Amino acid sequence: MKILFTFRPPRTWQDQLSTAFPEETFSYYKSIEEAEDLAEAEVIVTFGEDLTKEHIDHCPKLKWIMVASAGMEKMPFQSIQQRGILVTNARGIHKIPMAEFTVGYMLNHVKRFPEFLDLQEQRTWNKRLSIGELAGKHLLMLGTGAIGTEIARLAKAFRMKTTGVNRSGHENAYFDRIYTMDKLSTLLPQADFIVSILPSTEETRHLLKKEDFEAMKETAAFINIGRGDLLEEEVLMEALKNNEIAHAYLDVFVEEPLPDNHPLWSQENVTITPHISSVTSEYVPRALRIFMNNLEIYKENGTDYENKVDPQKGY
Amino acid sequence: MKILFTFRPPRTWQDQLSTAFPEETFSYYKSIEEAEDLAEAEVIVTFGEDLTKEHIDHCPKLKWIMVASAGMEKMPFQSIQQRGILVTNARGIHKIPMAEFTVGYMLNHVKRFPEFLDLQEQRTWNKRLSIGELAGKHLLMLGTGAIGTEIARLAKAFRMKTTGVNRSGHENAYFDRIYTMDKLSTLLPQADFIVSILPSTEETRHLLKKEDFEAMKETAAFINIGRGDLLEEEVLMEALKNNEIAHAYLDVFVEEPLPDNHPLWSQENVTITPHISSVTSEYVPRALRIFMNNLEIYKENGTDYENKVDPQKGY
Repeated sequence: MKILFTFRPPRTWQDQLSTAFPEETFSYYKSIEEAEDLAEAEVIVTFGEDLTKEHIDHCPKLKWIMVASAGMEKMPFQSIQQRGILVTNARGIHKIPMAEFTVGYMLNHVKRFPEFLDLQEQRTWNKRLSIGELAGKHLLMLGTGAIGTEIARLAKAFRMKTTGVNRSGHENAYFDRIYTMDKLSTLLPQADFIVSILPSTEETRHLLKKEDFEAMKETAAFINIGRGDLLEEEVLMEALKNNEIAHAYLDVFVEEPLPDNHPLWSQENVTITPHISSVTSEYVPRALRIFMNNLEIYKENGTDYENKVDPQKGY
Repeated sequence: MKILFTFRPPRTWQDQLSTAFPEETFSYYKSIEEAEDLAEAEVIVTFGEDLTKEHIDHCPKLKWIMVASAGMEKMPFQSIQQRGILVTNARGIHKIPMAEFTVGYMLNHVKRFPEFLDLQEQRTWNKRLSIGELAGKHLLMLGTGAIGTEIARLAKAFRMKTTGVNRSGHENAYFDRIYTMDKLSTLLPQADFIVSILPSTEETRHLLKKEDFEAMKETAAFINIGRGDLLEEEVLMEALKNNEIAHAYLDVFVEEPLPDNHPLWSQENVTITPHISSVTSEYVPRALRIFMNNLEIYKENGTDYENKVDPQKGY
């Protein structure tokens, strides 16, 4: 069978695939446009942002799409469902890098590492900075799925208090308490860290408003690794200018890349990263391990696929 | 009874002490030299670096010394033992800040946060930095006491491998394996992070030699939060210049404060902090909670003191 990748995994992984599945034909392309034998593919492995309805129509033999990411907003699910094509993805592989990223910045914040970098540049030995701890601090997670729960798990290891908000209020083991979204405004004043991993939906768009930032502790840090449109950036800028919170760590923005004349770049008390909280050198290997596991199942006409996607629901 | 402090805790804590023990007399001084009523003291609370044999002789009523730290190298234990004076300390209160500090720099290292700071200053959106993870990385702890074990506990929460070395090779739950010191050279080549919490003793002085750094991975990070004389700084400088390791995070030095003309300040791939890994705003509150607990026991003529010190052993 023809297995076609619309990206090029590292050479070592191509070799591993050929060794593990010597009877299959693997083709690797930089992009779907370059995939000249696309029409022959029985399996397509993609990052999920390139496939269109026209591609599906163009591939009569296509039976399985492996999306090597978790974002599937652009997938042509209607055609996929009509054709009964199997879809699997790599959900779950974001939680480790994103949780490490978040805890990393929480530690940076309490330990004031950037200030020690400045002191080192000035060759200054200063023991008088007041250094805090994560232990005993209160984390408020907006979103309690796989990623939010992994962050809460690590927060618990650091002896933090953890509160979550989600749509259902359904509890889980790493949160001291979970509330429904409508309780948010009563929870904000208690939190030392407010971390959002929320996706962009009608409900979450501009969820955090001026009065929410006013309700936060002046010493609180806000970390956004979900989507940029959780708030209007002008509202956040105002909150930071008025010192309503101590710091914002932003990995996502309304417009990405963040335009180079955007005022957030130079706003005090803001740390900007280029939407990389989930990026890691382990990403492709981890996605390919899921794929190889599922390829075994596929070849045996099994049904117990890892991360099978329901095309009707889109996740 | 007269309880005399040779340092001044925050006002709120002074109030808490008076409220909890209204029948006792508390005096607070900036230093032992200013303590005019020292001779009246039944209890002295000190950071442990100011007490001399002469002070002990000068305090006929002294029955209990609470050392609000863990370092007691300068305590006049012989006089203390002769007089049968009770000594308690605050050991254990270092492990939380020191473990958070260590994991914070490990995350800084794999996530390359300082480079993102530079990119932000240049208003540059760069998604191409190769970002690693703690998950799956290998931690080698030199020293497996309360602090080393707390670091290993957090490392396990981050899905790391943990190996320890100590004098006995005695195992403990948060280490995959613990070896005796003489196995060190065979363990170094496998470690991604080498963290030392070792005290300064005859055995640990200049323990890490040129060939040890040569044995480490080129990608390894070395973190020293123990004592500066674990190595000769010239040896470490050479290792860094030759890229035998990727980075050194140093909180302790042979001479402290690190002299401002010292070459380590500007050596590439070195992060310098001013012996602050154990410093935290929670330090005095935590020490005073131990003291208050022990004061209850003392008043009831109990014996079950928290952190009782054996003057003969000095710990």
